[in-house]
Amino acid sequence: MARNTQVAADHNAPPVTRVLAEYVAKHPSRGWSDTVDHEAHRTFLNWFGCAVGAARHEAVEAALAAVQVLQPAPQATVLGRSEKVDIASAALLNGISSHTFDFDDTHLKTIIHPAGPVASALLALAELNGSSGRSLLDALVLGIDVACRLGNTVYPEHYDRGWHITGTTGMLGAAAGCARLLGLDADRTAMALGIAASQPIGLREQFGTMTKPFHPGGAARAGLMAALMAQRGFTASPKAIEAPRGWAQVVSTKCDWNEVTDELGERFEISFNSYKPFACGIVIHPSIDACVQLRGRGIAPEQVERIELKVHSLVLELTGKKEPADGLQGKFSVYHGCAAGLLFGRAAEEEFADAIVTRPDVVALRRKVVATVDDRIDEASADVTAVLVDGRREHVFVEHAIGSLQRPMSDDDLARKFHGLADPVIGAQRSSTLLAGCRALAEAGDLHALTALARP
Amino acid sequence: MARNTQVAADHNAPPVTRVLAEYVAKHPSRGWSDTVDHEAHRTFLNWFGCAVGAARHEAVEAALAAVQVLQPAPQATVLGRSEKVDIASAALLNGISSHTFDFDDTHLKTIIHPAGPVASALLALAELNGSSGRSLLDALVLGIDVACRLGNTVYPEHYDRGWHITGTTGMLGAAAGCARLLGLDADRTAMALGIAASQPIGLREQFGTMTKPFHPGGAARAGLMAALMAQRGFTASPKAIEAPRGWAQVVSTKCDWNEVTDELGERFEISFNSYKPFACGIVIHPSIDACVQLRGRGIAPEQVERIELKVHSLVLELTGKKEPADGLQGKFSVYHGCAAGLLFGRAAEEEFADAIVTRPDVVALRRKVVATVDDRIDEASADVTAVLVDGRREHVFVEHAIGSLQRPMSDDDLARKFHGLADPVIGAQRSSTLLAGCRALAEAGDLHALTALARP
Repeated sequence: MARNTQVAADHNAPPVTRVLAEYVAKHPSRGWSDTVDHEAHRTFLNWFGCAVGAARHEAVEAALAAVQVLQPAPQATVLGRSEKVDIASAALLNGISSHTFDFDDTHLKTIIHPAGPVASALLALAELNGSSGRSLLDALVLGIDVACRLGNTVYPEHYDRGWHITGTTGMLGAAAGCARLLGLDADRTAMALGIAASQPIGLREQFGTMTKPFHPGGAARAGLMAALMAQRGFTASPKAIEAPRGWAQVVSTKCDWNEVTDELGERFEISFNSYKPFACGIVIHPSIDACVQLRGRGIAPEQVERIELKVHSLVLELTGKKEPADGLQGKFSVYHGCAAGLLFGRAAEEEFADAIVTRPDVVALRRKVVATVDDRIDEASADVTAVLVDGRREHVFVEHAIGSLQRPMSDDDLARKFHGLADPVIGAQRSSTLLAGCRALAEAGDLHALTALARP
Repeated sequence: MARNTQVAADHNAPPVTRVLAEYVAKHPSRGWSDTVDHEAHRTFLNWFGCAVGAARHEAVEAALAAVQVLQPAPQATVLGRSEKVDIASAALLNGISSHTFDFDDTHLKTIIHPAGPVASALLALAELNGSSGRSLLDALVLGIDVACRLGNTVYPEHYDRGWHITGTTGMLGAAAGCARLLGLDADRTAMALGIAASQPIGLREQFGTMTKPFHPGGAARAGLMAALMAQRGFTASPKAIEAPRGWAQVVSTKCDWNEVTDELGERFEISFNSYKPFACGIVIHPSIDACVQLRGRGIAPEQVERIELKVHSLVLELTGKKEPADGLQGKFSVYHGCAAGLLFGRAAEEEFADAIVTRPDVVALRRKVVATVDDRIDEASADVTAVLVDGRREHVFVEHAIGSLQRPMSDDDLARKFHGLADPVIGAQRSSTLLAGCRALAEAGDLHALTALARP
């Protein structure tokens, strides 16, 4: 632990984002004195001279060489789309799309979604460079290890402070992975980590907006470019992560360095990665799981008089929306989650469509859910009893939901999830071939067949 | 003030950057169990499906439309070079080069170098869109106002914590400026600010490496892309700056909101911008200025027995290097600064070349400088006495150095500085035309003539 801090958030700040936006959009042209306008000319002139003067400096040479890798675009696949773009943009876009449904992987110790930043950067680079599937996998394991170990170092203080930890560790994981894929030596890898360390991306305030999935995308792009710059000789502090004014101590008051070094190369954080079976916040998962199990026992919605749900208070605090009006609100409604589980036996992205959340039979069923708080029940558990019209009671207690580390999704579960996501975009047949390709990734000579399949 | 914090830096952290770099570079391929490797496949598969599944989401549509603006590159000028690149890369590169010599502008209240992030983003965008000089100037004033007002809001706590404030406010200034140049309305401008707010770039640990000038460059690129994404409908929190988990409260314990709102549209922070006459840290400037003045009185190096320098203790603490071995060390030597001032009457980038810092007459002269601490003298001042061989004493007291707000560089000083920077790269004649073009910026119909002149 490096520092102590007392955090007392200010909830009464004036709306300065709005104030500045109005000002920037509406202030009249040249709405200031001649003196101010003259200073603007001087500022521009001085900046221009400085830029021209340093144009041949080795820093500019190295950065220029790195960005020239992006040209000529298009170079890389935007997954699920026909457009190709430059590799930095592909890393960004695939990072955005993979986190858009909040359905990606979760490193449960830190709530990092590590594949978004790391895999998005790696696939784009691998596609351009013709890397093998094996080398991509190696870089994926190591990149995720770096991101998650650094997450362990600063979690939870860093997250509590308001950082979206996926994007604030992800650029380091992406840089590490790309450095590995490029075959950089340790010196240049340290520079890649150093360049990335200056670019933490993500505020929790953005949750609920498109900028949330931007965070892993931006981190993927930042890490990829950091590795390309380091490859060409761009320099950073070799202590950029741990120095007193380095990444960890600037973004966190908790800095447990042992999380980096303990069992390094022996314990791999990817082992603690998990996958969501349901496209919503993880606290609802045990309740959905229980209702899916009730459906598995043959209980049909029309038999149900009432569903008695007992959960930890946190569940209702975060997802207690009784009458969700659309799909997004549905993701914050344990009532809708239970209805979907019992009606459909699943709760993937489709079951959170606006049309489903507002469908009369779904609405009718969710209104039969009676939730009560019982703090003896862990927040990872749920106690559900279906009281049937005929008076019978069917009880299910879920200690750990499907998708948890204790009850991981099986490979078949993952395949079903994959089809659910990919079939509507590229068709079932292509999805099957793609799935087989992903499973045989270690044997792939390059990634071109895989990315071609992902372009509809 | 939103929070209190006690900062106690940990100077004894293990070298985790190095440890991780070695690990990533050297760990054997597939150096883990089958279980770990299987998990890597599952992670990749799950990520791939999520990305394909969300490929048609509006977030992906908006981000794709924004990055497609970058293509087909090349589009924009790298100042002082013949290469052209896409506009995001041009913003990055011009931001890097303009800060490489540490010779750019300084907003003295916050030590922000505002033109780097703001002007670099604006010129690239203006070049692509054919914007007028007037609209660029408007966007420059407003963008700098946003960056510096937000800097005032969090300075000094934010800077003391270890953030390089130029890049951690600059992306907001660049986003504001680009939003203005694109003609976005207040709603979309707020989104541009919001997207940018998630991307503070810069750690002070990077000082002395190429990543320091990367910070304004990265901020320019981030702000430009934020505006392009907002233009196409990408969303962010409308309270991204001020919310409890928004930019200001996450990156600073000091949040003085009045700095945003007071006299907004009446007082412009660009009025407090300053320009360096000397290519080194600002604490040496008064001493150099004094020696330049002594030279102006006709004192030649060979007449000098000794130079008695009295300065605040901070000056010797930061720049007390007696025997600098190269140009970079020369920038941290008040002794070299005095020698350059007396010998050359200037201390621009050339006077910090390795060959100058080690030239025998320069070395001999700097050894005649005897510096003593006198804390009655302000750190912005210097008291210098040349004791001559014939026994005479010439005394100069500099209260405020040239380049300070109290004694700003004149337009002619700035022109000389511009020539000193640009002539070696593009030639004196082009520099003159360019200088005239910058001075007449408000009348320029577009920026193409100006950027063409900056390509050698």
